[in-house]
Amino acid sequence: MALAPCFASDNYAGVHPAIMAALAAANSGPAQAYGADAVTQAARARFKEVLGERAEAFFVFLGTAANVLALQAMTSPHHAVLCASTAHINVDECGAPERHLGCKLMSVDTPDGKLTPELLRPFLLHLGNEHHNQPRVVSITQATELGTVYTAGEIRALADFAHGSGMLLHMDGARLGNAAAALSEGQECELRHITADAGVDALSFGGTKNGLMFGEAVVFFRPELAREFPFIRKQGMQLCSKMRFIAAQFLALLEGDLWRKNAAKANAMARLLADKVADIPGVRLTQPPQTNAVFAALAPAVIKRLQTRFAFYVWNHEENVVRWMTSFATTEAEVEEFAAAVRQEALKG
Amino acid sequence: MALAPCFASDNYAGVHPAIMAALAAANSGPAQAYGADAVTQAARARFKEVLGERAEAFFVFLGTAANVLALQAMTSPHHAVLCASTAHINVDECGAPERHLGCKLMSVDTPDGKLTPELLRPFLLHLGNEHHNQPRVVSITQATELGTVYTAGEIRALADFAHGSGMLLHMDGARLGNAAAALSEGQECELRHITADAGVDALSFGGTKNGLMFGEAVVFFRPELAREFPFIRKQGMQLCSKMRFIAAQFLALLEGDLWRKNAAKANAMARLLADKVADIPGVRLTQPPQTNAVFAALAPAVIKRLQTRFAFYVWNHEENVVRWMTSFATTEAEVEEFAAAVRQEALKG
Amino acid sequence: MALAPCFASDNYAGVHPAIMAALAAANSGPAQAYGADAVTQAARARFKEVLGERAEAFFVFLGTAANVLALQAMTSPHHAVLCASTAHINVDECGAPERHLGCKLMSVDTPDGKLTPELLRPFLLHLGNEHHNQPRVVSITQATELGTVYTAGEIRALADFAHGSGMLLHMDGARLGNAAAALSEGQECELRHITADAGVDALSFGGTKNGLMFGEAVVFFRPELAREFPFIRKQGMQLCSKMRFIAAQFLALLEGDLWRKNAAKANAMARLLADKVADIPGVRLTQPPQTNAVFAALAPAVIKRLQTRFAFYVWNHEENVVRWMTSFATTEAEVEEFAAAVRQEALKG
Amino acid sequence: MALAPCFASDNYAGVHPAIMAALAAANSGPAQAYGADAVTQAARARFKEVLGERAEAFFVFLGTAANVLALQAMTSPHHAVLCASTAHINVDECGAPERHLGCKLMSVDTPDGKLTPELLRPFLLHLGNEHHNQPRVVSITQATELGTVYTAGEIRALADFAHGSGMLLHMDGARLGNAAAALSEGQECELRHITADAGVDALSFGGTKNGLMFGEAVVFFRPELAREFPFIRKQGMQLCSKMRFIAAQFLALLEGDLWRKNAAKANAMARLLADKVADIPGVRLTQPPQTNAVFAALAPAVIKRLQTRFAFYVWNHEENVVRWMTSFATTEAEVEEFAAAVRQEALKG
Repeated sequence: MALAPCFASDNYAGVHPAIMAALAAANSGPAQAYGADAVTQAARARFKEVLGERAEAFFVFLGTAANVLALQAMTSPHHAVLCASTAHINVDECGAPERHLGCKLMSVDTPDGKLTPELLRPFLLHLGNEHHNQPRVVSITQATELGTVYTAGEIRALADFAHGSGMLLHMDGARLGNAAAALSEGQECELRHITADAGVDALSFGGTKNGLMFGEAVVFFRPELAREFPFIRKQGMQLCSKMRFIAAQFLALLEGDLWRKNAAKANAMARLLADKVADIPGVRLTQPPQTNAVFAALAPAVIKRLQTRFAFYVWNHEENVVRWMTSFATTEAEVEEFAAAVRQEALKG
Repeated sequence: MALAPCFASDNYAGVHPAIMAALAAANSGPAQAYGADAVTQAARARFKEVLGERAEAFFVFLGTAANVLALQAMTSPHHAVLCASTAHINVDECGAPERHLGCKLMSVDTPDGKLTPELLRPFLLHLGNEHHNQPRVVSITQATELGTVYTAGEIRALADFAHGSGMLLHMDGARLGNAAAALSEGQECELRHITADAGVDALSFGGTKNGLMFGEAVVFFRPELAREFPFIRKQGMQLCSKMRFIAAQFLALLEGDLWRKNAAKANAMARLLADKVADIPGVRLTQPPQTNAVFAALAPAVIKRLQTRFAFYVWNHEENVVRWMTSFATTEAEVEEFAAAVRQEALKG
Repeated sequence: MALAPCFASDNYAGVHPAIMAALAAANSGPAQAYGADAVTQAARARFKEVLGERAEAFFVFLGTAANVLALQAMTSPHHAVLCASTAHINVDECGAPERHLGCKLMSVDTPDGKLTPELLRPFLLHLGNEHHNQPRVVSITQATELGTVYTAGEIRALADFAHGSGMLLHMDGARLGNAAAALSEGQECELRHITADAGVDALSFGGTKNGLMFGEAVVFFRPELAREFPFIRKQGMQLCSKMRFIAAQFLALLEGDLWRKNAAKANAMARLLADKVADIPGVRLTQPPQTNAVFAALAPAVIKRLQTRFAFYVWNHEENVVRWMTSFATTEAEVEEFAAAVRQEALKG
Repeated sequence: MALAPCFASDNYAGVHPAIMAALAAANSGPAQAYGADAVTQAARARFKEVLGERAEAFFVFLGTAANVLALQAMTSPHHAVLCASTAHINVDECGAPERHLGCKLMSVDTPDGKLTPELLRPFLLHLGNEHHNQPRVVSITQATELGTVYTAGEIRALADFAHGSGMLLHMDGARLGNAAAALSEGQECELRHITADAGVDALSFGGTKNGLMFGEAVVFFRPELAREFPFIRKQGMQLCSKMRFIAAQFLALLEGDLWRKNAAKANAMARLLADKVADIPGVRLTQPPQTNAVFAALAPAVIKRLQTRFAFYVWNHEENVVRWMTSFATTEAEVEEFAAAVRQEALKG
C-alpha cells in the first residue's frame, strides 16, 4: 500500500521544509547541553512573546510526556484528573498518566469530546473524604480528539469552575494550532486568547503533529508549577541533551506564524474532503469538520476495500465510523484522488 | 565564552553531517507512525546483522530512558540493580531508576569505575530474605564514566557470575563505540564481541554521544525480555511517533562503520590532548586515557582561569580533578589551541 | 448520638468474643516474628484444608492491601484490571490500586454490582495494541458492594472467560462469608465451592468485617502467583512482625465454621430488618437483601431525622437511597428498635 | 528449639498485659470506623499532651509504613533522603522507601549508626542541579540500629543543619522509648525533649517493639506536613477500619508512662546480660549497651552451638558479631540462664 495520499494521522506526515532548514542551521559547532544554549534561551523567550510574560516553556520529546509531566507538576498521587472519556490521556497513552502520577483519571462521557462545568460538578461530591481521590485538575484537549474546538469563552468557564473548586486547568494542545486556526474565522485567534488569557494553568503545546520532526513544549502560567519542573523533567526521562534541536524547531514554528499556516492548511484540506464526500450515497459525515479530521460512517465492506489502498483508521468499530485526518502536507490533489476513490467504492456498496 | 574549542562533553557536539543527510533523506512523504514504517524495519534488521540474530532493537529518545526501560524489562520492584557507585544510573539521572523501577540501586566503590565478580559477591548474602531487595541485574557502563573499558573477557566473567546467581547483565553503552574503538588496537573489535558474544542480556546502545541529533536503542538478547517491551516503552513515554527519524540516524551510524570512525576520532583526540599536556608542570594525568576523556589534576586557580575561556567540568572538587572530553567533532587544531592554553595557565600557577 | 443500634457498616462492630479469646491465648511468651511461628503455620495449613491443597494464604493487615497486593502479584503496570464501576477497588480505596499497581482500572456499569462475560467482552478490542493498557485481571467482589451474590456457576463463567482471554480472576472477598452463608439455603455452600472450585485465581479473604479485630488473608490458587509474594508483601508495607496475632484470629474464625455463624447472623438480621420496614409507607426497598445490607429509598427529611439518632450512610444522594448494614453483633432487639424508629419517622413524612 | 529465653528481637515478645486489657476494654459495642471514634480522639489528644500542642498523631499498622508514609509527606520523588547506611529504611524494608516515595536514599557509613552534620555536608554539593536527587530529609533512628542513642543536643544540631539547608528532620523512633529511658539517668528525659523540643519535624513513634500487639504512630510537628496525610495514609493502605484498637493500645502505653517502664526494663536486662558475659573468655562486647541490645563477638562454633538452643541473630557475618536483644518481657532468670549457657559454650571453645 502506497502511503500517499495518506489520511491516517497527522503524525504520518514528514517534517515541514522550514523546520528541516532550522535543524540544519542549528547544527553549527558545539553548544551547551541540556538547554543552557542560546537557541533554547531564545525559544523560551519567544514563548513569552507569544503566550504572555508568565509563560514558562520547557521542551520535551513527545506529547504523552508533555501531558504526563505537566500533570505531575500539578498533582499528588491522591488527586484525580478529570477528563473526557475520549481524552488522549485516558485512552491512548497505555496508562502512562496513572503509572507516572499515581492518580486516578476520572472520565466522563461527552457528546462531542468537550467538557463543561455541568458535566464535572458531580465529581466534587466527595471533596475532603479520604476514601476517594480528590479532584485536582481538569484536563481538556484543544482541539479535541473528535476534532471539535473549545471557544475562548468555554475555556474561561471551565477555568473559573476549576479555580472555584480548588482545581487547576490543563490543556492538551497537541493540535492547539488547528484549534486556533479554526477559531480564526472573521477575526484572528491568537494562541494566548485560548490559553493564558482564558485561564489555562498548564499547556501541552504540540509540535510534532504540526510539522516538527519531534518535540513538544510544556508551558506553565503559574510560577509555582514551573519551579520544580526541571527536576520532574529530568527524572521523567525527558531532558534532551542536545536541546537546541528541539528549540530551533519551535523557533521556526513560531516564526511568521508558520504554526498557523500549517494548521490552517490541514484544516482546509479536511473541509475540502468533507465537501467532496458529503453527497456520496452511503457516506454519512457524523459531524461537520471543525479542524483537520473528517469522521464518516461507511458500510464495512467499503471501509475494508478503501483500506487496501489508503491508510486510515476506523474510529468506532461498532458504528463503522472512520477518521480521515489531514496534515500540513496534504495536497488538494491528494484530497481529490481520495474523494474519488471513496465515491467509487461507496457506489459499489 | 566561545564554545569552540569545547571539552565539556561529547553531547555538546552537534550532529555528524552524514546523520543530517540521513534525516533529510528520510523526510520523503508520509510514513507509518510509531515504528511501522520501512526505515524502522530496516534499522531493526540492521541491528541483527551487527549484533546477531537474537538482537531485538527498540528505539527510544534518550540515554536515561534507554537505561531505565531496559532495566524495567528485567526487574520487579522488589529487586535490586547492582552497579558501580560512579555509574550514570546511580549519579546522573536524578533518581529516574528508583522512581520508575521502584527498585533499589546497590552501588559499590571501585578503583576505576569497573565492576568485578569479587566486588559483587557480598551483595548475594541476603538472597531469598524478604526483608531485603533481591539482586537481579548487574549493570555496567561501557566505556565507564571514568573512561575505562571492559575487555570481552571481563564482561564474560561478569555475565557468568550474574547468570550463576540468578541475575542478568545490563550494559549502559552510551559510549559503546568508544569502547569498541579502544579495544581495536591490533585486531578489530566488533560490537558483538563485547555485547551479545560476551553474555550481555540487555544493552543501551548510545547514539547521541556519537554524532546523532537524538536517539538511543535498547537491544535485548533474550526474547522474553523483548516480549512486553512495546508496552513498557509506550507507557514509559518513549514511543516516538515519527520513529523513522530515529531509525534513519541509526542506519547511517551503522553504515560503513561510521560509529567506529566517529568514536576512534574522539578517542584519538583525547590521546593527543593527553600527550600534549602530559609534561606540563602542575598538570597530572590521573589515569591514561582509554577512550575520549582526559582526567587531570590541576591547581584550583588554573582551573578557574581556564574555565573563563573554555567549557569543561570539574570531576572531583575535593581533589581538583577536571574532565576534558573530546568528540567526533573535535579537531587537532582545537586540541592544540587548548593544550597551549593549559600550558600557559599552568605555568602562571 | 449513641452508636447502638448501629447500621452504618459491619466494620463499626467490635470483635467477636471467640476472637478476643484467641488473641489472649496467642499471647503466651515469645514467638518468631514475621510469620515463622507455629500459629501462623497452623493457620496457613488450615486454609489448605478449607480451600484446597493449592491454597497459599498470606496474612496482611487490611482489605485494601489484600486487594492491591493480590492484584500486584497478577499484573504489570501496563495491564488493566476490569471491574464493576461500584467495586471497592474502584471507588473506596483513594486510588490505591492505580498508585501501587501503575495499572488502569477499567470499570463498567452494572445493574446489580455483578460482572458478566458479556459486559467485559468489549474491553478485549485492543488486545496487543501498545497504545492501550492490556486487560489482565477480572476483579469481582463477593458479596458485591450492593449486597448481591455471585453463584458458583456465575463465577465459573467469569473464570472461563478470563482464562480464555489470557486473563486471571481475582475475588475481593471482604464479605465472602456473607456470600457463602447466603448461598447455603437448601444445601451448605462451602467456601471452596465459590473460590478455588469455581476457577478463582486469587482471593482477598476478609476477616475484619466478619468479627476480627484486624487482618485479612490473600490466598493464591496458582503457585506462580505466590512465589514472589513474600517480597511484594514486605515491600508493600504489610508484613506484620507479631503475625501470630493475625493468624490466631483466622484460626478461630475458621474453627467450627465461626465465619459462617457470624455471617449468617448478619444476613438474618438484614432480612429481619427488611421484613420489618417493607410495609412502611414512604419506605421502598430498592432490592431484596441477599446478604447483610438493606438498601432503601426514603424521603430526604426522614433520612435526616433518622441520622440524628442512628449511624448509617446515604448510598445514593441523587436517589435518596440509604444503606443499612448489619453485622455479627446486631441483635433482634436492635433491629426492632431501629425498625420502629424508621416507621415512626416515615409516618411523620 | 524452645523460644524462651529469647534474645532474637524485641518483636519476638508478646503483648504487655496492660495492653491486652486495654484491647478488651475497647471492645464494647459499635464505634465509628476509620478513627472517628472517641478512643482515637482521646489518644490523639494524649499525644499532644505528651509531645506538645503541635503534635498531630496518626495511627498506622506497622513501622515500615510509619517511616515510609511520614517521609512521603515530606518529599517529592526527585528528592533524596539522607540516612546512615545501617538505617532500617535503608537495609531492612525491602526497598519500600524507594518504591513508594520514588526518592533516592543517600546513605553514609558511620562508626556508631549516628549521623552528624559533618557526615552530611558533602551531600549538599549538587543542590539545585537537575541531574541529581535533591536532599530534602535527614532521617535518623532513635535509638539506632546499633543500640546507640542521640542526645537532645545532637538531635538539635542535626535539626539546625537540616533546616539551614532547606531540609527537614525525620526520626524513626521504633525504639524511642528505649532511647528516652537510656537518657534518663540522673534526670528524667521526657519524650518531647528528644523530639519536638529538639527540632524534629516528623516522628515514627514505635509501639510494637515496646509491648503493643500492633500499631505505630506518625507524628508531625508542622501543620503543613499533616494536612494531606489522611489521604496519604488511606492511599498508602494504612487506614485501619477498627482504629480504636490501635488507639486504645497507645492510650495504655502512654498511661502512667508504661512506655518508660517497659523500655527501662528491656534496657536493664541488656545491661545485666552484658555484665554477666563481659568477663567470659572468648566473648568480646563490641560496644557498651546503651539500650536493649548487646553486641558481642564470639567464635563461629560457639555461635552455632548457642543457636541450636536459643534464638538470636548474627549481626555481622564477617566479624562474627551477634546481637542479643532484650524486651519488656525479658526476665532476670532468663538472662541468667542464657548467660550461663554462653559461658558454658564459650569455655568449650
